[in-house]
Amino acid sequence: METVIIKGQSKLKINSPVFIAGLPGIGNVGKIAVDYLIEKLEAKKIADLYSSHLPPQVMITESSRARLVRNELYFKRLRKKDYLFFTGDFQGLTSQGQYDISFSILDYISKFNPNLIITLGGYQIGKLVEVPRVLGAYTSDDARKKLESLGVVFSKNEPGGGIIGGAGLLLGLGYEIFNVEGVCLMGETSGYFSDPKSAKQVVSVLAKFLNLDIDIKDLEDKAKEIDELTNKMMELPASEEKKEDLGYFG
Amino acid sequence: METVIIKGQSKLKINSPVFIAGLPGIGNVGKIAVDYLIEKLEAKKIADLYSSHLPPQVMITESSRARLVRNELYFKRLRKKDYLFFTGDFQGLTSQGQYDISFSILDYISKFNPNLIITLGGYQIGKLVEVPRVLGAYTSDDARKKLESLGVVFSKNEPGGGIIGGAGLLLGLGYEIFNVEGVCLMGETSGYFSDPKSAKQVVSVLAKFLNLDIDIKDLEDKAKEIDELTNKMMELPASEEKKEDLGYFG
Amino acid sequence: METVIIKGQSKLKINSPVFIAGLPGIGNVGKIAVDYLIEKLEAKKIADLYSSHLPPQVMITESSRARLVRNELYFKRLRKKDYLFFTGDFQGLTSQGQYDISFSILDYISKFNPNLIITLGGYQIGKLVEVPRVLGAYTSDDARKKLESLGVVFSKNEPGGGIIGGAGLLLGLGYEIFNVEGVCLMGETSGYFSDPKSAKQVVSVLAKFLNLDIDIKDLEDKAKEIDELTNKMMELPASEEKKEDLGYFG
Amino acid sequence: METVIIKGQSKLKINSPVFIAGLPGIGNVGKIAVDYLIEKLEAKKIADLYSSHLPPQVMITESSRARLVRNELYFKRLRKKDYLFFTGDFQGLTSQGQYDISFSILDYISKFNPNLIITLGGYQIGKLVEVPRVLGAYTSDDARKKLESLGVVFSKNEPGGGIIGGAGLLLGLGYEIFNVEGVCLMGETSGYFSDPKSAKQVVSVLAKFLNLDIDIKDLEDKAKEIDELTNKMMELPASEEKKEDLGYFG
Repeated sequence: METVIIKGQSKLKINSPVFIAGLPGIGNVGKIAVDYLIEKLEAKKIADLYSSHLPPQVMITESSRARLVRNELYFKRLRKKDYLFFTGDFQGLTSQGQYDISFSILDYISKFNPNLIITLGGYQIGKLVEVPRVLGAYTSDDARKKLESLGVVFSKNEPGGGIIGGAGLLLGLGYEIFNVEGVCLMGETSGYFSDPKSAKQVVSVLAKFLNLDIDIKDLEDKAKEIDELTNKMMELPASEEKKEDLGYFG
Repeated sequence: METVIIKGQSKLKINSPVFIAGLPGIGNVGKIAVDYLIEKLEAKKIADLYSSHLPPQVMITESSRARLVRNELYFKRLRKKDYLFFTGDFQGLTSQGQYDISFSILDYISKFNPNLIITLGGYQIGKLVEVPRVLGAYTSDDARKKLESLGVVFSKNEPGGGIIGGAGLLLGLGYEIFNVEGVCLMGETSGYFSDPKSAKQVVSVLAKFLNLDIDIKDLEDKAKEIDELTNKMMELPASEEKKEDLGYFG
Repeated sequence: METVIIKGQSKLKINSPVFIAGLPGIGNVGKIAVDYLIEKLEAKKIADLYSSHLPPQVMITESSRARLVRNELYFKRLRKKDYLFFTGDFQGLTSQGQYDISFSILDYISKFNPNLIITLGGYQIGKLVEVPRVLGAYTSDDARKKLESLGVVFSKNEPGGGIIGGAGLLLGLGYEIFNVEGVCLMGETSGYFSDPKSAKQVVSVLAKFLNLDIDIKDLEDKAKEIDELTNKMMELPASEEKKEDLGYFG
Repeated sequence: METVIIKGQSKLKINSPVFIAGLPGIGNVGKIAVDYLIEKLEAKKIADLYSSHLPPQVMITESSRARLVRNELYFKRLRKKDYLFFTGDFQGLTSQGQYDISFSILDYISKFNPNLIITLGGYQIGKLVEVPRVLGAYTSDDARKKLESLGVVFSKNEPGGGIIGGAGLLLGLGYEIFNVEGVCLMGETSGYFSDPKSAKQVVSVLAKFLNLDIDIKDLEDKAKEIDELTNKMMELPASEEKKEDLGYFG
C-alpha cells in the first residue's frame, strides 16, 4: 500500500489557511490544545490520514465500534479567515514515518495555498511550575515579532536540542520544501502526565496571536483538577523532596 | 521484489463472498478456527501470498520438502453463498508489514466484491476460564446486532487497548479503504498456549451467524485434551495458587 | 538508490545452468564450500551485486585498496554443462533485505533458464562430530532421490525449524516465484567456528551429485588443522566435560 | 516523500570537480576538516540535502530560528580547479539510509563529471597520541602514490574492519557505481571527543595533496586548547594510569 493514504472531501474552497497542528507528544500539550480548538470552534473534519507508519491497530470507540488509527484534518472559517487543524491518535512510529506523514499532509494542504504553519507541542522541564511559559521557534520573522510581544520566549538555548517529531518536521519541511513560513509554540510541562495547564497557556497565546475568540474555561477547569491532584500528592509525608522533581509521577 | 506477491488462480467466478481471516496470534485462536473451517468445509486453495514482510525462511514439511512461508486464501461455495478463508504461517514481522499484507489481500479480493469481513482472533485474559466468552468489535451495525443476539459481547472496555495486528487491520482497512463492513470475533483465552477451546467457541458462534453446518466435534476433543492437561497440572502440589494465573505455563 | 544493483557482463551465453549458492552463515559452511568450488574449478566472475541491504561499508583488501561489500556471481562451463556460483561478503541485514537480495539474483539469472538451484549451508548441532552428516531439504523430487542414494539425510525433523536466510529463500523463492526446482545441502557443524570439515562433506556429496572432478585435498588439510586444534583444547585439564558442548569455543 | 530531496541551484558551471566529504563521525574529524576548508576557502553553498533518513528534527539556531536537519554541498573554484565540499548535521540513521544518502549526492554531482572523491574521517585508536598519523584507503592508484609520499599510511591492517558509514560508502559507491576513483583519509583520534588536532593533520595532508594554500592556524589553536585541557586532566592525582586510555573522557 501507499505508506500514507489521505481520504479527503473534494471540491473544498479553502483560501490561504493557517495550518495548526498538534499531535500526541510531550505532556500531550499539542494534541490537547488542537483538540480543544477543534471542539470550541466547531471545526469540521475534511480528511482522514491513514498510514502504515501508524500502529497496526484499530481503536475501540465508546460504542465498541472499531476504527482504524488515523490522523485528522479539520477546517473552520472565521470572519473570512480559513483555518486548518491537524490532530491524530499517534505520530509515525519511525523517523522515516514521521517524515512521510508530515510531508504528506503538507503536500495535501499545499493546494489550499497555506500562509502560515503553527505547530503546537510541549517542552519538557521535568518539574511542576506555577505558570508554564510558552517557548517559540520560528521560520517566520513576522510571527516571531508578534508572538514575542505576547510573551512567547524565543531563545537559542531552549529547546537546546532542537524540536523532534511532527512539531519540528511540519515547521521544517513546511519552510524548506513547501515554502510556507511558520512558528512552533511549546508549552512548558513537567512531561510526566497529560498537561491541560500547559495546553491552556498555549491556547491563550494562540488565541491572542490569531485574534480568535475562544472560551478557555474548560481548559482552566481541567488544569485546576490536575493542580489539586498534584498538590495533594505534594502534601503526602516524605514527598517533600519530590516537589522539585516528579520523576516518575503519572 | 514487490513486498507482497500473490499467486492466484485466474478466471475464478466468486460473487460477493464473506471473507473470513484467522492468522497466528494470541492463543492462536484465529488460525485454529479458520484452519478448522477450511478443513471441515473442504475449501479449496485459490491463492498463495508471499511477502518480504514474512520471515526469510522455508518450512520443512512432513516429507522433508521445503516450502516458502506464506499466507493462503481458500474458497468454498455453500448453498449458492461464497466464502473466502485467509490463513497463514505468520503475520507480517513489522507494523508496516502488517499493513502491507492486510492491504494487499484486501486489494486482491476486492475484485470479487466482498460483502462482509470477519476476522477471528484471541483475547488474552491471562487465566483459564471454564467457558470462554466471545468478544466482538464491528464496523457493520447489522452484523453486530445479529452477533449480540448470539451471545457475543460488545463492550467499549474489552478489548480496551484496541485490536492489534491482522485481525484489527483487515477490519479497519477493509472499512476505511475498501468500503467493506465487518466484524471481529475474539475468543477469550489465557494466551499461554494454543487454545482450541477458545477457537471452538468462536467457530460455534460463527457457524450460527453464517448458518453453516459444521461438525464441531474435533475441536471439542482437542479442547478436552487441553482441559485434562491443565487440570492435571492444577492438581500438582503447591500449584494451588496458580489456578487463577498460569503466567508462564505452556 | 535501487535497493539492489547488479553489475554484470552482457552478452553471456549461458544455457540452463545449475545455480549453486553459499553465503556466510552457520559455521560459514556454505560460503567455504562455494568459494572452494569457485577456486578449484577456476570459475570466472560475471557479476557483482551491491545492495543497501548489505552493511554500509568498504572492506580493505591486502593492498589497502577499498572495495564496497558485495555478493558475487561466477560462471564455469564443464563438459558442456553450465554452472553459476553465488557467494558474498554478507547476507542481507534485515529480513526484507534477505528477500530482496535473493529475489534479485534469481531474477538476474532467470534469463539463463536455470534448471536447478542448489543452496549450501551449515546445520548447527552444538557439538563436534567425527564425520558430519549432510542433511537435505528439497523442492526437486529427482534431486532428492539421487542425493539420498549418496547418503544425504532427508528428515522432517532436521532442520526442525525450517531453513532461515539465503539458503532457504533462494530455494523457496526459486521454486514458488521462478519455477526452478532445487535442493539445499546442509553440513552438520558445531556452529562455533568457521568449519572446513563440514564444508568438505558438503563439497564431496555435491561433486558426486554433479559428477564433478574436484580435488578435495585442500579442504581436507584445513579440516585436519581444525581437528588438531580442537583435540588439543580437549586435552587441556578441566575441559573434559566440554567435549560434548563447546558452547563458546571459537 | 522521496527519501532524499536535494534542493540545489540550477545552471551551475562546474567542471570535473574534486569532491571532498566529511560528515559527523568518529572524533568528528571528517566534519571538522571539511567545515574548516569551507570556511577558510570561502566556499559557497550550492545545495541542501534533506532526507527522511536523517533525524525527524529541526535544529535551533543562534537566533532561535528553526531549520530542518540537512547535509550541505559547497562549491569553490581555485586557480581554475573546481572543488565540491560535502558536510552535514548527521549521517543517515540506518544502513539503508547511509546508502541512500551517499548514492543520492553522488548521483547529484555526477552531472559535473567529478574526477576524484576524497572522504575524510577519524580512525579510533582509543588513546591520545602526540602526532596523529593519517591513514589512507584508496580506489585510485595515482592518489595513493602521491599521498604515500606525503606520509599517509596505507596498510591492509588499519583499518582492519573496513570503513563504515559515509566515508566508506562515498568511496565505494563512487568507484563501483559512478566510476569515479577516490581516496579516504582518516586521522588517528582517541575517539573520545571532537578532535581538531586529528582534523589538523588531515587538513595539512590534504592541502599538500591538492596544492591548496590554507591557513591552518585556527585549527592549531583549537588543537592546543584541547591538548592543554587533556594535559591538565592527566595531572590530576590518581589519573596517572589513565594516560594510555581515556575510556570515558569527554
